[in-house]
Amino acid sequence: MTDHSLRSFLDACAQRIETALERCLPSERVPPARLHQAMRYAVLDGGKRVRPTLAYATATAIGLAPEQVNGIACAVEMIHGYSLIHDDLPAMDNDDLRRGRPTCHKAFDEATAILAGDALMTQAFLVLCRDEGLPGGPQARLAMLDDLAWASGSRGMAGGQMMDLEAEGREIDLTSLENIHIHKTGALIRASVRMVCRARPDLSPDRAERLDHYAKCLGLAFQIRDDILDIEAPTAILGKTHGKDLAQDKATYPALMGLEAARQAAADLVNEALDSLTPWDGKADPLRWIAGYIAQRNH
Amino acid sequence: MTDHSLRSFLDACAQRIETALERCLPSERVPPARLHQAMRYAVLDGGKRVRPTLAYATATAIGLAPEQVNGIACAVEMIHGYSLIHDDLPAMDNDDLRRGRPTCHKAFDEATAILAGDALMTQAFLVLCRDEGLPGGPQARLAMLDDLAWASGSRGMAGGQMMDLEAEGREIDLTSLENIHIHKTGALIRASVRMVCRARPDLSPDRAERLDHYAKCLGLAFQIRDDILDIEAPTAILGKTHGKDLAQDKATYPALMGLEAARQAAADLVNEALDSLTPWDGKADPLRWIAGYIAQRNH
Repeated sequence: MTDHSLRSFLDACAQRIETALERCLPSERVPPARLHQAMRYAVLDGGKRVRPTLAYATATAIGLAPEQVNGIACAVEMIHGYSLIHDDLPAMDNDDLRRGRPTCHKAFDEATAILAGDALMTQAFLVLCRDEGLPGGPQARLAMLDDLAWASGSRGMAGGQMMDLEAEGREIDLTSLENIHIHKTGALIRASVRMVCRARPDLSPDRAERLDHYAKCLGLAFQIRDDILDIEAPTAILGKTHGKDLAQDKATYPALMGLEAARQAAADLVNEALDSLTPWDGKADPLRWIAGYIAQRNH
Repeated sequence: MTDHSLRSFLDACAQRIETALERCLPSERVPPARLHQAMRYAVLDGGKRVRPTLAYATATAIGLAPEQVNGIACAVEMIHGYSLIHDDLPAMDNDDLRRGRPTCHKAFDEATAILAGDALMTQAFLVLCRDEGLPGGPQARLAMLDDLAWASGSRGMAGGQMMDLEAEGREIDLTSLENIHIHKTGALIRASVRMVCRARPDLSPDRAERLDHYAKCLGLAFQIRDDILDIEAPTAILGKTHGKDLAQDKATYPALMGLEAARQAAADLVNEALDSLTPWDGKADPLRWIAGYIAQRNH
């Protein structure tokens, strides 16, 4: 991997998802304008776009053009965006800063933020129902909708956030921490890859399983790096409040296993993710770049 | 219509939806238990079940067995349940009482209530993806998912709640009030009928349009009755705080047009709903009973 190829791939994905999101979010001129402003504020022009980038890279690996999975990329990013809005609310993590800007309920108000989150979630399902470019046929699309609903719901992302809240201020072990992350962030990251695989119903089960394993390892590695960065990176680079986990007495990998061991665990998971891509030629390079990026990312 | 046939129809629907919801909500024994408890608390054992009852009655009218549309009935009731949880939050309508019991955030806490609402929404989509009894094929199911997403989102229910919040304490005219209700409650009520029509792709466009018009009139009539009841019925019968609209200086039909004119408007809409059922024989009687029930309901 060269830094240049990674950079240009990430840039292309960022551009593509921005245009696609811009197109499938309701205009600010459509009433209720304030709600649509809040939805757009929370989703456009920001974020690392990890999930869409994974969707695009998976498309490339299985022989689809990235544009063909725009609907999936938008859907997972909207679900991610809604979850950030709700997680930041005073009753939840009570965060004022997100991506270097005021959180949605700070920029607007709490009621608008709750509704913007709700509406983003339904918009994700709507886009997935309507996007015309998605290959695979109606059965594949139904499977994608099922994946998205499962990954976002009480036994996926929302369940993970609940577990996270319940664990606050309590001593939990590594298994419980991993269980939180598998649900809170892992489920949607896995869905970003799995939904793209649905668009190729002829994909061999072995390949589909390997990509799923890649996503599983990557999701956990991403979370461990997140915990490490919360300790290491200053607020300006992070775009959210630095040291927040520590201040809230949240269980993190570095806290439970030590900083060095956490670094090693992340590196091991990234290697496992890379291993599962062995059968692929250069088509899986974008997936390999993402793994490398997550191993090294500093924000 | 006899009171007896209406009563036994409503009872049968109430029983059927309770069993169906019980089956498609995650068990309280599945972690995160508290989240699943909150979801079940908010949805089971309560409510008028207007939307499921409409779905079942529509099924009967178009020659389907009510059980065949259990998935639709559950989905719309879960979306309704989620919207009540979020609408009751302190940042929104700040209500302590719902269906004669503490609201979800009072019985649990705000964070749990927000997540329970979120998870109910995704569960609605999941049920609609997975329910095995739904007729019509994958294309019909995709159309139902599209209906549900559209009706719940920023140009449907969530948008209506936003408009309602924005109108609070401001003078609005009858057109604006109607616009709020068309979105806030009307969209999901219409979807409850429309989604069932999707299950019969061979239904004539004229019949489908007539049922849609029925639902549109009924939804508005229901809301006007709701406004009237907020003034007339004591809290004990209503199951929610009496006189709330008045206390919050909310625009209502009786406030804008007078109590008698509001009563007349509701009656006219119910008659218009009944008129659109003219081509049907006795199969549409349950739909006729519901219209009569809404015209006369006292809670």
